[in-house]
Amino acid sequence: MKIGIVDTTFSRIDMGRIAIDELKNYAGVKYVRRTVPGIKDIPVEAKKLIEEENCDIVVTLGWVGRAEKDALSYIALSVGKIIAELMTNKHIIDVTIHEDEAEDEKTLLRVAENRVREHVRNAIDLVRNPERLTKHAGTGQRQGYEDIGPILK
Amino acid sequence: MKIGIVDTTFSRIDMGRIAIDELKNYAGVKYVRRTVPGIKDIPVEAKKLIEEENCDIVVTLGWVGRAEKDALSYIALSVGKIIAELMTNKHIIDVTIHEDEAEDEKTLLRVAENRVREHVRNAIDLVRNPERLTKHAGTGQRQGYEDIGPILK
Amino acid sequence: MKIGIVDTTFSRIDMGRIAIDELKNYAGVKYVRRTVPGIKDIPVEAKKLIEEENCDIVVTLGWVGRAEKDALSYIALSVGKIIAELMTNKHIIDVTIHEDEAEDEKTLLRVAENRVREHVRNAIDLVRNPERLTKHAGTGQRQGYEDIGPILK
Amino acid sequence: MKIGIVDTTFSRIDMGRIAIDELKNYAGVKYVRRTVPGIKDIPVEAKKLIEEENCDIVVTLGWVGRAEKDALSYIALSVGKIIAELMTNKHIIDVTIHEDEAEDEKTLLRVAENRVREHVRNAIDLVRNPERLTKHAGTGQRQGYEDIGPILK
Amino acid sequence: MKIGIVDTTFSRIDMGRIAIDELKNYAGVKYVRRTVPGIKDIPVEAKKLIEEENCDIVVTLGWVGRAEKDALSYIALSVGKIIAELMTNKHIIDVTIHEDEAEDEKTLLRVAENRVREHVRNAIDLVRNPERLTKHAGTGQRQGYEDIGPILK
Repeated sequence: MKIGIVDTTFSRIDMGRIAIDELKNYAGVKYVRRTVPGIKDIPVEAKKLIEEENCDIVVTLGWVGRAEKDALSYIALSVGKIIAELMTNKHIIDVTIHEDEAEDEKTLLRVAENRVREHVRNAIDLVRNPERLTKHAGTGQRQGYEDIGPILK
Repeated sequence: MKIGIVDTTFSRIDMGRIAIDELKNYAGVKYVRRTVPGIKDIPVEAKKLIEEENCDIVVTLGWVGRAEKDALSYIALSVGKIIAELMTNKHIIDVTIHEDEAEDEKTLLRVAENRVREHVRNAIDLVRNPERLTKHAGTGQRQGYEDIGPILK
Repeated sequence: MKIGIVDTTFSRIDMGRIAIDELKNYAGVKYVRRTVPGIKDIPVEAKKLIEEENCDIVVTLGWVGRAEKDALSYIALSVGKIIAELMTNKHIIDVTIHEDEAEDEKTLLRVAENRVREHVRNAIDLVRNPERLTKHAGTGQRQGYEDIGPILK
Repeated sequence: MKIGIVDTTFSRIDMGRIAIDELKNYAGVKYVRRTVPGIKDIPVEAKKLIEEENCDIVVTLGWVGRAEKDALSYIALSVGKIIAELMTNKHIIDVTIHEDEAEDEKTLLRVAENRVREHVRNAIDLVRNPERLTKHAGTGQRQGYEDIGPILK
Repeated sequence: MKIGIVDTTFSRIDMGRIAIDELKNYAGVKYVRRTVPGIKDIPVEAKKLIEEENCDIVVTLGWVGRAEKDALSYIALSVGKIIAELMTNKHIIDVTIHEDEAEDEKTLLRVAENRVREHVRNAIDLVRNPERLTKHAGTGQRQGYEDIGPILK
């Protein structure tokens, strides 16, 4: 299988490097990495990786700043990534770090590291072992933080 | 008829299991179940079930967290599910639980259980007995809670 | 001409019945009625009535609750109905009642009754007598309430 | 050249009449005018004027009320007009009056009159003399109000 | 390579002129410049430059006012530019100045000048040297302001 990785120069953490490091744990997974300026440039790059580079799936790595206009860009990214998926019938797994989701930089770094690695594993499962995701259906998985767990009777 | 079921690992309740349990009450309904990480991954999976697995309709089972960014993802999901429907001319019935819509987990569990079952029945009626929905037009149906009922003269 | 009517089981008023009653005033207008669970299910049903039932125009009858997430669904409905129109080059006249737009149920009932009837007339004019709409251009028409009227020099 | 004009019965000012009056200053410009109920009906009418009436460009004339749901409709209109443009590769110049942008009706009337006329001129320039727009690039043009002017070193 | 430049008459700074000036530093880069009235007119012009003028990439130069409705237009622009990219499989680099992002006009002028020049360089790298962007992945690049830099362990 072939996986696409798209990250940004806007991000304050080299998320693409983490994703590629995680891929080393999987034999036989080829990858192509592309870097764009910011999150609004991500959807078309993901679509190009699918259509021009024959990727089976793409993991996109975005970073959203604290300003209100950054939230607006996040909506545009989210709608855009879904339209790109609908045009290609392939999954694009969106990993986003919101700069205001943690108090300090150390925590952000840990969250980003975990979230990228977990979503790379999700992407590989979606292509190779979709039934592994079904085993975890409804279990309150949280990428980057500890899983919150299921609500049980 | 064949129905698609899409749920998430993010959800804290195994909504897919409830949907499949409800389907047992209906003879001759086949199903395919897929699980994706979160709600923004739902639209393309629903479209794939329609186009690649020949489902007549899909029920999608989403879970929206309490954070503001989760509301933004909910907009993207909603627009995406409608575009997927418009591209396929098939219904995708979206069942969403908002984590903040109930005070305690017990209530959430009951709401989710009811809402999933009622929307599975809606989906089957849309394909098999659309006139049954017309009988309930304008009657204030509320999936998950008690029906609020019609406003009468 | 053939008109499509789409309403919901979520609505607390049988808006479809009102629309069909209004149609009796017009000779030679055939109709097809479909009922879906909620407003996010409306756009694809409208598109199917145009493409599979050969309707010349569709009137959709939605009901928006008081919760904030209902406002988000209203955006999705609005964008979806416009995309459905752009894909078919046919008008879809959206009649929406917002549950919080009136103080009491009696007023809501009166507003809904008027708004549905006026928009059914608009739909018929759009197909049969578009110049009748032009006669009322810029006159501050308000469906459901009294017209607010034009601003004059 | 042929220009399309779309206005609404919701508007409180006959903006279509103003647009057509402005067109008299230009020789050889044909026009087609259509009126729809409200702003969400505008995008498909503009697309039909381009595709079915062979208009080179369309000027759409909308009126947005004071209610919050009117702002939501404005988003839908804006996204819809852009998608219509992308599907046709033609410009649709959107002239919108927001009922709350002026204190009194007299001012609204003056703003509307100016804004419509200026955007009709923009539309004609876009087709006939696009380089005239480039001459005014970055000069802080404001249609309806006085130009705010450029920021100079 | 051939680059498209789209700017507006609404902008208070001649951003197109700055972009073209920056292009002089690059040999063999041809350009086409178009000016439209405002930001909602940008996406279709960018698409036309790609499809009708064979541009490899487009840099769009927008200016967003202080009013709330300007924020709504910014969402529409952002979604529209992404859809235009998805329809053409080409990048459209969006450079936006928000009038309220700086206290005084002098700062706005400096931010705009820097942001336009940096994004022109990004656009050229995306076409000619995409690996140069990857070298800066995750380094907290900020166009217009000083780079914020990476978060390091």
